[in-house]
Amino acid sequence: MADRRDHRIIDGKAVQHRLLAEIRAELDAAAKTHPVGRLVSISIGPSPEIEVYVRNQARAAAEAGLPFEQVVWPAEATQEDCKRKIAALNDDPSVLGIILQRPVPAHIHVRSLQSAIHPLKDVEGMNPASIGNIVYNDIALAPCTAAAAVEMVRATGLSMPGLEVVMIGHSEIVGKPVAFMLMAEGATVTVCHHMTRSVAMHSRRADVVIVAVGKAHLIGPEMIKPGAAVIDIGINQVTDAAGKVRILGDVDTEAVREVAGWITPVPGGVGPVTVAMLMRNALTAHRRQVAAGWLEAIEA
Amino acid sequence: MADRRDHRIIDGKAVQHRLLAEIRAELDAAAKTHPVGRLVSISIGPSPEIEVYVRNQARAAAEAGLPFEQVVWPAEATQEDCKRKIAALNDDPSVLGIILQRPVPAHIHVRSLQSAIHPLKDVEGMNPASIGNIVYNDIALAPCTAAAAVEMVRATGLSMPGLEVVMIGHSEIVGKPVAFMLMAEGATVTVCHHMTRSVAMHSRRADVVIVAVGKAHLIGPEMIKPGAAVIDIGINQVTDAAGKVRILGDVDTEAVREVAGWITPVPGGVGPVTVAMLMRNALTAHRRQVAAGWLEAIEA
Repeated sequence: MADRRDHRIIDGKAVQHRLLAEIRAELDAAAKTHPVGRLVSISIGPSPEIEVYVRNQARAAAEAGLPFEQVVWPAEATQEDCKRKIAALNDDPSVLGIILQRPVPAHIHVRSLQSAIHPLKDVEGMNPASIGNIVYNDIALAPCTAAAAVEMVRATGLSMPGLEVVMIGHSEIVGKPVAFMLMAEGATVTVCHHMTRSVAMHSRRADVVIVAVGKAHLIGPEMIKPGAAVIDIGINQVTDAAGKVRILGDVDTEAVREVAGWITPVPGGVGPVTVAMLMRNALTAHRRQVAAGWLEAIEA
Repeated sequence: MADRRDHRIIDGKAVQHRLLAEIRAELDAAAKTHPVGRLVSISIGPSPEIEVYVRNQARAAAEAGLPFEQVVWPAEATQEDCKRKIAALNDDPSVLGIILQRPVPAHIHVRSLQSAIHPLKDVEGMNPASIGNIVYNDIALAPCTAAAAVEMVRATGLSMPGLEVVMIGHSEIVGKPVAFMLMAEGATVTVCHHMTRSVAMHSRRADVVIVAVGKAHLIGPEMIKPGAAVIDIGINQVTDAAGKVRILGDVDTEAVREVAGWITPVPGGVGPVTVAMLMRNALTAHRRQVAAGWLEAIEA
């Protein structure tokens, strides 16, 4: 495990706590004029692998001062059932935001359900409309993981304008939004992927390398420019020779930190910040709902 | 003027005619089962600078076998008038597509009017919803200029997967859509802009350089790798010392073609292909309207 006192390691927990304290202060102020509703986490069917996520979200919500309700719908719920229930949550002014936990049962079409969440309640930033808006630099409710990666770049203190960033991975919910969000801040972004001829040619010249591929230890020290920042979004479950299950990032953290100027560990890097971004989206959702006239002002 | 018989020059007119012939054949086939409506070009107020554009569009429409109607609304039309009229065109099944010519009078909000055009009739691909869909690789109705740039890359015959592309300029309607469309085909794309530390560092390593900045002769031969393809989207009106007005691209074509493997001239490069893309979008719009059940089948 990386030593958290190593100044090269960006401690995601510390960033999370700082962000949650800021969000709490802003929510407390906002709550004086307009009621702050609750976050509703939806799981469909029993699914032990998401419990740890939900628990982390509930804990972060408490730290941010946000009411958090966990609902579990039956595994046999139909797509139509789920849509109808989401529509009811959209209409309920006491619901600030909706989180749809994944995985869902095989008969549920997850993208379609995500589209059913109203964009102003889409605190995960997963609605295709929200993601499309990123093209227009409207990053109000960005996908949380992408927003967390950007926050990690910010945590380095590097100046964004002109920053040379190489994004490895071009998924709709991470790679592409990250590229857009950093472009909007003035960075020069190259997006690499499985068809890129030489990822190393790009990563070795970058000030910041962000990796979201899903291959354990894909990125070694020979791919990083000395002093660069390395943001690792990968979460890979690997069983070692002794049969022990470990969580590894896409970056060989131990080796790369000897070269990098900054590096995010896995676990304990981008993950905790992603949860904080969910709460920041909730704060933004509240502001947007106030601006849209959805919430009645509290009388003085 | 560049010699069009120079094999390095990609002749936009020739590409246009080839594309329009292909589109005409497909439209002729489509018209056997479902009626093909007309394109409606809307100008608001008199505006001599757009006449040449409209004329070129009308000519290309004729070549593709598409009915083309030009309407001019009064300069004093309000935003609400225009929206109402666009809604009527959206509802009219004999209207295949709507083109909103620019510039519009100062009191008209152009982006809002573009949003009023139904996405299935948005043959210019300017509706924010259409552009947002590009994130999801749904490039059905892409902005015409961006689509034309991609078509020009295709005209080189270079294989897209792994192609190293540098896009200079990151506007919503050209740079960003081009980046996404080429990423979707497997290219590795870097987007440079006014805050990029060294554009030359990127452009000199690229297999393809695409420029959409709006600065005459910004790109010289020292910025291009020998044998690379150079796609010039710039259209700059420049008055020379003798008082003569000339149209120049963002690329110093005469100098760069001594280095480049392929180059698109200005005028006569991307421009004519952009008009062909408008007709290709019309063909796509027809297919989508048929799929959506908007058009009644012709009885045999």
